[in-house]
Amino acid sequence: MLFDQITIVGVGLIGGSVGLAAKSRGVVGRVVGVDRNTDAIARVLAGAALDDYRTDLAEGVAGSGLVVVCTPVDRIAEVIIAAAQYVKPGTLFTDAGSTKAAIVAAVRGNLPQGVEYVPAHPLAGSEKSGSGFSCADLFVNRVTAVIMSPFGANWERTLAVGRFWEALGSRVVLMNAEEHDRTLAFTSHLPHAVASAVAGVTQSDWLRLTAGGFRDVTRVAAGDPELWAAIFAANKDSVLSALSTFTQRLQEFRSLLETGDHAGLVQWLTEGKQVRDALGT
Amino acid sequence: MLFDQITIVGVGLIGGSVGLAAKSRGVVGRVVGVDRNTDAIARVLAGAALDDYRTDLAEGVAGSGLVVVCTPVDRIAEVIIAAAQYVKPGTLFTDAGSTKAAIVAAVRGNLPQGVEYVPAHPLAGSEKSGSGFSCADLFVNRVTAVIMSPFGANWERTLAVGRFWEALGSRVVLMNAEEHDRTLAFTSHLPHAVASAVAGVTQSDWLRLTAGGFRDVTRVAAGDPELWAAIFAANKDSVLSALSTFTQRLQEFRSLLETGDHAGLVQWLTEGKQVRDALGT
Repeated sequence: MLFDQITIVGVGLIGGSVGLAAKSRGVVGRVVGVDRNTDAIARVLAGAALDDYRTDLAEGVAGSGLVVVCTPVDRIAEVIIAAAQYVKPGTLFTDAGSTKAAIVAAVRGNLPQGVEYVPAHPLAGSEKSGSGFSCADLFVNRVTAVIMSPFGANWERTLAVGRFWEALGSRVVLMNAEEHDRTLAFTSHLPHAVASAVAGVTQSDWLRLTAGGFRDVTRVAAGDPELWAAIFAANKDSVLSALSTFTQRLQEFRSLLETGDHAGLVQWLTEGKQVRDALGT
Repeated sequence: MLFDQITIVGVGLIGGSVGLAAKSRGVVGRVVGVDRNTDAIARVLAGAALDDYRTDLAEGVAGSGLVVVCTPVDRIAEVIIAAAQYVKPGTLFTDAGSTKAAIVAAVRGNLPQGVEYVPAHPLAGSEKSGSGFSCADLFVNRVTAVIMSPFGANWERTLAVGRFWEALGSRVVLMNAEEHDRTLAFTSHLPHAVASAVAGVTQSDWLRLTAGGFRDVTRVAAGDPELWAAIFAANKDSVLSALSTFTQRLQEFRSLLETGDHAGLVQWLTEGKQVRDALGT
C-alpha cells in the first residue's frame, strides 16, 4: 500500500478509473472523491471506486497523503492552489491533465511550504466521458508522463507519485512540461483537431458511404467539446505550431497530386506508412 | 446460385475475399482466379477461394458469366477492355475500384455488343493488403455502391450484378459515378490523406507518447502507397476540392484558437461531434 488515503478531485472517466484501479490493486487504503456533480459520484461510489465523497473541497482533501486532480485542464491549477490550504504538511498533489506547462506555471510559487505538486498525464482515456465509463484497467499498458519540476524537483516526492501511477498499471516516462506539451500537440491535440475537421466537413447523408477508415479517423471527434476546447487553449502555441507543420505537409500532398507526380505521391505516402508501421497494430 | 462460373482478376485482399465469400455462400458454382502473381493465387487457392487459376487473361475469363476485376484502380479499365475480347456474349463485368468516373469514361465505347460493365465499389477493405488477409465475411454489413451507367443502363444486368454483391453480404446503394467519386473524396480519400499527413509529421521517438487517439486517426496510413497514389490520381479533382474544404475548416479552428474564442471553439468541435455521433460507435 502506497498511501493510507487519497482524494480524487473530479470524478469523471479518469477520476473514477483512478479510484477503481487504486482500490482494486490495493494501492491505497481509502479513496475519497470530491465533485460538484453528486450524481457522478454516486455512480462511481456504487462501482466500488470511492469509500467516501464530499462536495466540499476542504473536507474532501483533509487527511489524505495524495490528492489526484482529475478535473478539466482549465480548472486544475485553481483546484490545487485552493486545496493546498487545507491539507496536512507533506501532502502530495498530482493530476491527470492533458497539458502541463500552463498548469505548472500557474501553480508555481502558490503552494505552502512542504506541499508538493508532481504533475502527471496518464495517456489513457476515451471519446466517452463521465464516471459511468470508468474502468479499473484504464491505465494498464498505457504511458503516464510524470513531469520533472524545472524549479528543483524533490526526488523522493517525484518517485512517490511516479510509483502511484505505476501501481495503477501504467509505464512512467519522466519528462519536462515543455517537451510534453510540444510532443502531445503532435500526438494527441493535432489528431483531435484533424479528426473533428474531417467530421465537420462531412454531410450527414454521406455517412452511409463510409467504412472503417472514416470511422477510425473520426472516432475521437465524438469527445467532449468543452474538455477539448480547454486543452487546445492550454496548449495554444504548440498546437498552432503543429497545425502549421501539418498544413505544410498537406500542401505537399496537394502539389504532388496537382502535378501528377506519381513517384512523389508514393514516397509521401510511404513516409507516413513507415511511421505508422513503427507504431504497430 | 447466381452464376455457374465467375472469374476474379486480381487476387489480393478484395479479390480473394470475393472468391471466399462467393464459394462459401454458394453464390457461384466455380471461381477462376487470374493474377500475374502466382504466389498470391496459390495462397488463396489453398484457402478455398478459387477452383482454378490462370496467369493468362484470355484463358482465365473464358466461359465465365461474370468477371470481377479487383486490380488497383489504374488497371481496371484496361483489364476490362482487354478481357472483353475473350468472353462469350452476355458476359457481365463488375469491379471493386475505389473510384468510378475515370474508369467508366475509359471503358465507354470500348466493349463489344452484348458485353456489359456494371461498375461497383464494395466499401470494405483494410490497411492490410494481399490475398493472405482475405476473409469470407469482408462484405457483410458493408455497403456496395453499384453505379448506374449514364449511357442507358440495362436494368436486368444492373440487377444481376447488384444481386451478386448483395449475395456476398453487402447492402447495395445505387448511384451515379460522379456522385460516388465526390462523396468518397470526403468519406474515404480525404481521411486517408489526412491520416498519412498526421503520421508523416510525427517523429518516431514521439510514438511512445501516443494513445488510442493517434492510433485510430493514423491507422489507414499503413495502407499500400501504390494503391492509394492510384486512387488519388483517379479522383484528382474531387480530392483537391475536398482538401480545400477541409483546409478551410481547419483554418477556422486556427482563427478561433488564435483569438481565444472559447465559445466558438466549443461550437466548432460540437459540429464535428454531431456528425460523428450520428455515425454511431
